[in-house]
Amino acid sequence: MTSEYKTIDEANQAVIDKILAATPFLMDVVPAKSVIPLLDQQSGAKKVLLHAGPPIRWDEMTNPMQGSCIGAVLFEGWAADEDAALELLTSGKVAFEPCHHVGAVGPMGGITSANMPVLVVLNKTDGNYAYCTMNEGIGAVLRFGAYHRGVIERLRWMRDVLGPVLGQVLRGIEGGLNVNVLVTKAIAMGDEFHQRNIAASMCFLKEIAPRLVYADVPQDQLREVMRFLADTDQFFLNIMMAAAKAVMDAARTIQAGTIVTAMTRNGSNFGIRISGMGDTWFTAPVNTPDGLYFTGYSSADANPDMGDSAITETFGVGGMAMIAAPAVTRFVGSGGFGDALATSNEMRDICIARNPSFPVPTWDFQGICLGIDARKVVASRVTPVINTGIAHKQAGIGQIGAGTVHPPVECFDQAISAYAEQLGFTG
Amino acid sequence: MTSEYKTIDEANQAVIDKILAATPFLMDVVPAKSVIPLLDQQSGAKKVLLHAGPPIRWDEMTNPMQGSCIGAVLFEGWAADEDAALELLTSGKVAFEPCHHVGAVGPMGGITSANMPVLVVLNKTDGNYAYCTMNEGIGAVLRFGAYHRGVIERLRWMRDVLGPVLGQVLRGIEGGLNVNVLVTKAIAMGDEFHQRNIAASMCFLKEIAPRLVYADVPQDQLREVMRFLADTDQFFLNIMMAAAKAVMDAARTIQAGTIVTAMTRNGSNFGIRISGMGDTWFTAPVNTPDGLYFTGYSSADANPDMGDSAITETFGVGGMAMIAAPAVTRFVGSGGFGDALATSNEMRDICIARNPSFPVPTWDFQGICLGIDARKVVASRVTPVINTGIAHKQAGIGQIGAGTVHPPVECFDQAISAYAEQLGFTG
Repeated sequence: MTSEYKTIDEANQAVIDKILAATPFLMDVVPAKSVIPLLDQQSGAKKVLLHAGPPIRWDEMTNPMQGSCIGAVLFEGWAADEDAALELLTSGKVAFEPCHHVGAVGPMGGITSANMPVLVVLNKTDGNYAYCTMNEGIGAVLRFGAYHRGVIERLRWMRDVLGPVLGQVLRGIEGGLNVNVLVTKAIAMGDEFHQRNIAASMCFLKEIAPRLVYADVPQDQLREVMRFLADTDQFFLNIMMAAAKAVMDAARTIQAGTIVTAMTRNGSNFGIRISGMGDTWFTAPVNTPDGLYFTGYSSADANPDMGDSAITETFGVGGMAMIAAPAVTRFVGSGGFGDALATSNEMRDICIARNPSFPVPTWDFQGICLGIDARKVVASRVTPVINTGIAHKQAGIGQIGAGTVHPPVECFDQAISAYAEQLGFTG
Repeated sequence: MTSEYKTIDEANQAVIDKILAATPFLMDVVPAKSVIPLLDQQSGAKKVLLHAGPPIRWDEMTNPMQGSCIGAVLFEGWAADEDAALELLTSGKVAFEPCHHVGAVGPMGGITSANMPVLVVLNKTDGNYAYCTMNEGIGAVLRFGAYHRGVIERLRWMRDVLGPVLGQVLRGIEGGLNVNVLVTKAIAMGDEFHQRNIAASMCFLKEIAPRLVYADVPQDQLREVMRFLADTDQFFLNIMMAAAKAVMDAARTIQAGTIVTAMTRNGSNFGIRISGMGDTWFTAPVNTPDGLYFTGYSSADANPDMGDSAITETFGVGGMAMIAAPAVTRFVGSGGFGDALATSNEMRDICIARNPSFPVPTWDFQGICLGIDARKVVASRVTPVINTGIAHKQAGIGQIGAGTVHPPVECFDQAISAYAEQLGFTG
């Protein structure tokens, strides 16, 4: 070992100890540029957009992610219309950087720009922060590549009203909002925190609503924010993503072992990181989800998988915790209760342990999966299951279904080979 | 048969068709006396208190129910202090009537007086109404027999603020709030609607919160109501009780068959009604719940079972739907997931059918139990299981635990014997 650990098992234990000890708190909502220096450009400097997944160039992006970029350019006022935005984006004057490289995560396209408000999660155990944009609701939304006027107007309202109001309420909570508590509550209420966040979103509303009505904000803004939060069943997803990122980034400080510390997709490639290989991405062409389609759509319309949201599965929820959310199994086309149980049991076999902080009543109170071991994936050829929304391959149409997707096993093969080589094994 | 039905099975089918067809909507919150004529006394007329369970005299009531009566007298201003209240209650100048006799239900003591606000549920299918007081929260509360100043002050706040504000919001919802929709949502979120209502209470908050902030009410009242609703995890229980009463009262219009149409307890007796025997109560001494006690208490402190809340089990939720709420099983001392499953499977065997309107994901999407058949109870000696709070036998101490309780099987024996006799069977 190149580290203080005598064996891979010992290193892996140190990684999962970091996950177990993590205490993510939702502290604030602030403009992205105020916490992500890369986005805080000086006038004349190169513009930057963050995106989901491992690194990608503009010309490699699928249509929905490109659509999201157009939307972000219009939102930021970098261009006056779609044509001008496209010209800017293809000119090379906009740099693209993975969210993951700057402590952030983004759903679907994951496009994040300077003035978008982001959720601020602090892992108090290690003192590290993570960020994620807020959920825009359903229908035509930027994360699926929509960029028409209504989409941009909603983003501006989120910037001018939702973000500041929610930030004010959160700053008024002494010590912030304990995310683990919300996860523990909602996992007993059928959420798996990727496809289904309705209980957690209501738990969040229950915390925010009574504080919001005491906040010193204009009445019209209070009303709009209350309505938006009550209507947005997936609001908690982005909180869960930021929390999982904060936890897994703390785990990544242990630079040894074979625990998967990130899984993410950019519509072109799937990328993973393992603890022993630090910041290195191991990538392979991404799969297209299997699942159920909304009326009028089929797999022929589906975009290949994208988004940083698989950070939830990396942490042990989402598809890994399918049994927590039997109501989801039908929505993603994975059968009934027995199928959900079989899925979680299978996932348990590629993990090191289970996390007792988050007991699953429907799993006879076993904890969620803890620590995907890339060695076990390589040996068993069983890959993590990811619950996901399915985007139309054409920008702006949005979600057309929901299903499950698996990473290509090659990512894990590469990671283990590289780590073995780093440890001095050859051939 | 004394009816239009050729067989008991045919009659029972008619009863469960009524249950299946029922559409309870929460319409309003109003003072009890405005909808329950018996409580709307003229000056000088005999005062009336409603109570839980089958009929009972003052001197038969256990201590917590008597404490609730004292609290109600103080709340109504019929007496200035505890001594005067006791004098009035023992004088014979107060009449006691079961909630069930006036279209109402009440939790624990079930004491309901003229000026208490009640939830108004309309079963739109049959046009019949049912009423229930609102949940007061936890700790020292009237329903467990507490009557000190803080309890009475909260009841006055509920009369002066919570009731009117919530009534105003509900009247603003075109057609009222569809209770079935909330039940369907929350049953997929681990509620069984007797011991556990946290998801349904949040679903209710999610409906009310955005409307409340648009309501024309003073800001301080808006704030107080929002905080109370966000803090009161059992708020939905009383809505469920009123809805179940509305449904079962519609079922009771079929005066034939052996379906249980009410189960209730007054701390002294357990009473049931069956469809073929109309308004007749079949009673036997009530049991004391088995369960887990809060620190410092034991079964020696427990009051015998009381409350109209077993209307939830009559409808098919509560203990009958234990499998919907695996998180409850540990709270009531009933083991893990397997035990919850075994309980619901056993309950299925004393029911006619299952209700497809309320599929339970943890039961592989089977519907909740539908129609307890007293014949099956008599034949199998398996009695319905009821999830319940455990009251201290001394008034005012409040809840000391939670557990399960069964009706005495004699109630069912009597009911079936009486019905057989009515149908002309003798000996």
